[in-house]
Amino acid sequence: MRIALDAHGGDVGLARNISAAIETIDDPTLEVVLVGHQLQIEVELKRRSVAAGTFEILHAEEQIGMGDAAVQSIRRKSDNSITRAMELVKDGSVDAVVSAGHSGAVVAAALMTLGRLRGVSRPGLGTKIPTREQVAFCLDIGAVIDPKPEVMLQWGYLGACYSESVLGIRNPTVALLSNGEEASKGDALTRAARELFETASFNFVGYVEGRDMLHRPPHVTVTDGFTGNIALKTAEGTASYMASIIRRELTSSLKNKLLAALLRPTFRRMREQMDFEGIGGAPLLGVNGVVIVAHGHSTAKALVNAMRNAQHAAEVQLPKLLHNALPDDTKVSADPEPLVAEVTSS
Amino acid sequence: MRIALDAHGGDVGLARNISAAIETIDDPTLEVVLVGHQLQIEVELKRRSVAAGTFEILHAEEQIGMGDAAVQSIRRKSDNSITRAMELVKDGSVDAVVSAGHSGAVVAAALMTLGRLRGVSRPGLGTKIPTREQVAFCLDIGAVIDPKPEVMLQWGYLGACYSESVLGIRNPTVALLSNGEEASKGDALTRAARELFETASFNFVGYVEGRDMLHRPPHVTVTDGFTGNIALKTAEGTASYMASIIRRELTSSLKNKLLAALLRPTFRRMREQMDFEGIGGAPLLGVNGVVIVAHGHSTAKALVNAMRNAQHAAEVQLPKLLHNALPDDTKVSADPEPLVAEVTSS
Repeated sequence: MRIALDAHGGDVGLARNISAAIETIDDPTLEVVLVGHQLQIEVELKRRSVAAGTFEILHAEEQIGMGDAAVQSIRRKSDNSITRAMELVKDGSVDAVVSAGHSGAVVAAALMTLGRLRGVSRPGLGTKIPTREQVAFCLDIGAVIDPKPEVMLQWGYLGACYSESVLGIRNPTVALLSNGEEASKGDALTRAARELFETASFNFVGYVEGRDMLHRPPHVTVTDGFTGNIALKTAEGTASYMASIIRRELTSSLKNKLLAALLRPTFRRMREQMDFEGIGGAPLLGVNGVVIVAHGHSTAKALVNAMRNAQHAAEVQLPKLLHNALPDDTKVSADPEPLVAEVTSS
Repeated sequence: MRIALDAHGGDVGLARNISAAIETIDDPTLEVVLVGHQLQIEVELKRRSVAAGTFEILHAEEQIGMGDAAVQSIRRKSDNSITRAMELVKDGSVDAVVSAGHSGAVVAAALMTLGRLRGVSRPGLGTKIPTREQVAFCLDIGAVIDPKPEVMLQWGYLGACYSESVLGIRNPTVALLSNGEEASKGDALTRAARELFETASFNFVGYVEGRDMLHRPPHVTVTDGFTGNIALKTAEGTASYMASIIRRELTSSLKNKLLAALLRPTFRRMREQMDFEGIGGAPLLGVNGVVIVAHGHSTAKALVNAMRNAQHAAEVQLPKLLHNALPDDTKVSADPEPLVAEVTSS
């Protein structure tokens, strides 16, 4: 499998992406194509004593900054690394794209270059959630801010298919994120979506509350991109806030420092169990290709995980499976609305 | 100050509320009126060797269960402890109500018995958020699921006034919860609210993301009840999920158990810093009286905090301040919509 890696994606940028690529060198099943500024990439590879020719490099003159406007920057900077990576997928010379760049720009570039799968109204961005008991997946986390209920129904099918084919869950449970478990709960959008979900052929189990997203989550949680983005970032923020309290308390005295040192392996295991960044990136479901958006803070390990995830999705031919998973009566033939006006930028 | 305590509120019910009331006995500034089933309350007080007559008791024959439908149960069970407590506020024989019961039922009973402050369209339920740097307050967390932007503007004024008068913050910053900081972000409702907030006389500072609600929050975060409920419960769920991981890891071996025992005071301090339950309950802002909804899981200490909070709000004459804080052009004279149809139940 050949994966295009956006060499400039993420808060750290080039160095970290190169580190991730280097970690895959010994894997004969995975070939990384580095997309970005050729000279800069070559300098960085040389600095790491990587032989010329180890990686294929596709030059892109421009880069999208994390603060750029998503759609506009993709349109204006036509020779940017994200769009160039998408073009490689489109012409079939790679099997998937991974980028830790500006997520709104990645979504916009995917929509503009690859387009949607036939029948999909609005592709959704999903992510695994770190939970103990089971693999949990949630979408949309920010690609579509004010979706229609019909769009959310499609996400139910796409999420269930992803969960089954990539995450290996048989007959995954699907729920809608809401403010309570009773059917009377939900805002107007969620209640309308629930009516559609009740008639779906996937395993719909009703509403899930924010509290249970980590404790006893359904396999797939569907929500609009506004709520999903806020829920995910609130969970991340709470986890990192708690981690900062723990860090501060455990370094507050010499005694605590010593005890903490003895507990180091334990704390490492804890961190791994609540790692929102190392879970393999966020697949964009519903575009015509395999696209994984990695977290801007991704470590090299997280980027490697995202590439493995992309490789796996490409192996099972995810886009084809997703298209087949949508029942005909949920497919749309054309969508009159502007496609990329509402994609998010973070 | 006289506070009516719903003796049957909360997951544990009578015993815990009685414990909280007992903790206030030595405080001459606070007089607790227990509202609930007289005989059951007397039996519980006797069991604790509390002298008859220590507390005034107001009998209510019925109770609202945590699983009951909010509005219907308040209507059907007319002699319930929550409504009886509200009636004490209404006739001026107590200064505030605290209930750890069914929050939707408390909101419904407050609306039906006390009514709204003149000019307030929809009262909002707020809560303090445990953060390190400063006191942060968020509303609405579930009273109004699909508010209009004008309702959210009122919450901006009510939240700022509460933050100033009860929490002691001078010129509090006010933000809208959104999926990104840029003005282009937000769902349709949040963007419409932002337009109104831009013209408000309180200190509006723009959007805040879920990630920053704990790390560097504004003093007041305003959001709709659906999103607020999900964000708050997600934060609570993440915190308790992490606590469960820590607990499991620290009891996974004899060595860890010993080290954890030595760190016990440290862990206690940590817990206090991320205590979502001990922060004094959720004030219902905009009704004609001081009403505090405590968390269903409240400990006795949390209930005492909620009563202290209620006492303080009554001392500053919160309802009057809130009414004065609303500029005339944001006040509504009548609201044609059903008031209590959309209150939540948890």
